[in-house]
Amino acid sequence: MDKRQVLIFDTTLRDGEQVPGCKLNTPQKIEIARQLESLGVDVIEAGFPVSSPGDFKSVVEISKSVSEPIICGLSRGVAKDIEVAAEALKYAKRPRIHTGIGTSPSHIKYKFKSTPDQILERAVAAVKHAKSFVEDVEFYAEDAGRTDNEYLARICESVIKAGATVLNIPDTTGYCLPDEYGAKIKYLMDNVRGIENVIISAHCHNDLGLATANSISAVMNGARQIECTINGIGERAGNTSLEEVAMIMKQHPRLDVYNNINSKLLNPISRLVSERMGMHVQPNKAIVGSNAFAHSSGIHQDGVIKNRETYEIIDPEEVGVHESMIVLTARSGRAALAFRLHKIGYTVTKLQLDEIYQLFLEHADLKKEITDDDLHEIMKISSVPGSVEA
Amino acid sequence: MDKRQVLIFDTTLRDGEQVPGCKLNTPQKIEIARQLESLGVDVIEAGFPVSSPGDFKSVVEISKSVSEPIICGLSRGVAKDIEVAAEALKYAKRPRIHTGIGTSPSHIKYKFKSTPDQILERAVAAVKHAKSFVEDVEFYAEDAGRTDNEYLARICESVIKAGATVLNIPDTTGYCLPDEYGAKIKYLMDNVRGIENVIISAHCHNDLGLATANSISAVMNGARQIECTINGIGERAGNTSLEEVAMIMKQHPRLDVYNNINSKLLNPISRLVSERMGMHVQPNKAIVGSNAFAHSSGIHQDGVIKNRETYEIIDPEEVGVHESMIVLTARSGRAALAFRLHKIGYTVTKLQLDEIYQLFLEHADLKKEITDDDLHEIMKISSVPGSVEA
Repeated sequence: MDKRQVLIFDTTLRDGEQVPGCKLNTPQKIEIARQLESLGVDVIEAGFPVSSPGDFKSVVEISKSVSEPIICGLSRGVAKDIEVAAEALKYAKRPRIHTGIGTSPSHIKYKFKSTPDQILERAVAAVKHAKSFVEDVEFYAEDAGRTDNEYLARICESVIKAGATVLNIPDTTGYCLPDEYGAKIKYLMDNVRGIENVIISAHCHNDLGLATANSISAVMNGARQIECTINGIGERAGNTSLEEVAMIMKQHPRLDVYNNINSKLLNPISRLVSERMGMHVQPNKAIVGSNAFAHSSGIHQDGVIKNRETYEIIDPEEVGVHESMIVLTARSGRAALAFRLHKIGYTVTKLQLDEIYQLFLEHADLKKEITDDDLHEIMKISSVPGSVEA
Repeated sequence: MDKRQVLIFDTTLRDGEQVPGCKLNTPQKIEIARQLESLGVDVIEAGFPVSSPGDFKSVVEISKSVSEPIICGLSRGVAKDIEVAAEALKYAKRPRIHTGIGTSPSHIKYKFKSTPDQILERAVAAVKHAKSFVEDVEFYAEDAGRTDNEYLARICESVIKAGATVLNIPDTTGYCLPDEYGAKIKYLMDNVRGIENVIISAHCHNDLGLATANSISAVMNGARQIECTINGIGERAGNTSLEEVAMIMKQHPRLDVYNNINSKLLNPISRLVSERMGMHVQPNKAIVGSNAFAHSSGIHQDGVIKNRETYEIIDPEEVGVHESMIVLTARSGRAALAFRLHKIGYTVTKLQLDEIYQLFLEHADLKKEITDDDLHEIMKISSVPGSVEA
């Protein structure tokens, strides 16, 4: 693999679907999986086969329906889970089993009532068992974000020897700061024998709003796979947003990495996932929110009308949005008003604009947004001669 | 001021209100300002007085209604704006004028059709003019994120001499990566004479999903004010989320800073702002989303039932949410099912649970979420003897 490529591992259908109120049926999952394939994701985590008969069936059907990306099935680090995952993946052209175990003190002590050495043994056994079914085995060290680096390195080295091809280092609780998470990845790059033969994967949660920054920090320190979801959906505050990390890598050449995402499909797939899952996207969501390219303040509108790049770092077309919006509100200035008047067929002089602007402000202070219809109304009550629609 | 304190500058009523579709009337703004005062914010940016008569009036009325926080009014770096802002702030006990000008090549060239030296002169003149009305003058270097550091330092030094008390370094377009934005703050800390007598303020936008991380990176490099909004609302993809930065500082003692936010009010004020502005918050929003403390996967539920801290880094009570939710879906395990059955009055043996769990999965594969009513139904059709409600 090209060392500059960052693999996009989409877990919308597994960690994303694991959300209160957004269960999908199998045909809906297939529909989304096909769109993820068009989008260019490298890995689709299709489900957690042992968790329910419906999830098992979805992994089977997605494996049959999608051919380009790797299809990945989740399992806990126990034999039965792994066997069921292998069974569900039997039609996949490029199957991957994702298995692992909690490695932080909290997980070892409270969840497993075990010891670090026993956990290490179980991790190795799980990877070996998975490897007996498929070549491509990803190991997750659950709650790696709160796991001591030295112990984590020891586990990583052992599972590499057991055959793991990808090491997932999840910040399961969304606790890490970017410098800390990046340092953890760097520690593994520097201290794990055999690390050059495997891929480190970042799996971040957004409990403190840092999932995207943590994933990018991981990439800057050597990670070459990001686990993420469309719209950042997922357990609690969600996972890393696919659209955010894909566009950061595209916008920042200094990172010296690339990914295979066809960014023009980001907004269409965001809407598809939001509709099928019944999970709305807030207007102020980066890249895919309905306001992400809308300008309403006068200062910003004026700047955008003069030169788009003054306030927009991304051309909306590049992410599948067909124009930046100039929305008229009480915060809009004369430039935006003239721009919108011109768009609907009025050409006015500077002096005329002054009068119309006062009328506009009176209306705008009473209304949230001034529409084209409102503008026609304002033009009618103004004293501007010939102010009829063109 | 204590060097460990980070001031919270709330701009929900200015940059937040500058959003398509969310204009507030004056009584609603006063209601929100009073809640921001209870929340413990240090500065309330109440509006942009010159922009419209309604906004002017809101700044006047908020100045009369709120006494603890500094009240700040925005103005462009032009005399009339500054005079109108001063007039609107005349009832404020602690008034601040926020004035400034674009400093990036794109702003200087396209927006102002000017030169760096002329912009510097205009910046100094604006600060001096503001200073003739109020003691507390904050200067913004618009698009500082894309402004050359050396030129930015020269402007900062000049406006400090002219009387600025706070320097706002906005990443106006949301372009910076955290390391880059932090390095910019560090450059100013290291290279601007007089910087020790003023406060550096971080003002970040979320176009790439990095506003929170950038603000924290600024604090780690010396910034001592963060400009933010409730729910992260604001122009385009919005501003830094107040709730996220406040909780990161609280959760990470290693940052060695504090803020005055009463975190228990974060969820109530989030709901108030969302309702009054008609701007919904997505379920997977950090800290204040409806799912932020909801667990639906079996692995996570099992962990949380054994010990909350396995999957939760924040006690929901601490941010005004009254319990973490254990939501039953097809991804839930036996532990969660037993937990919820127990809550509604059924105590079952391990063997009985196995039977009920199969019935539960059949129902759950067909439904998004299993409610208490569904559980009663499942218990009725099970063969568990005496499975009547307790």
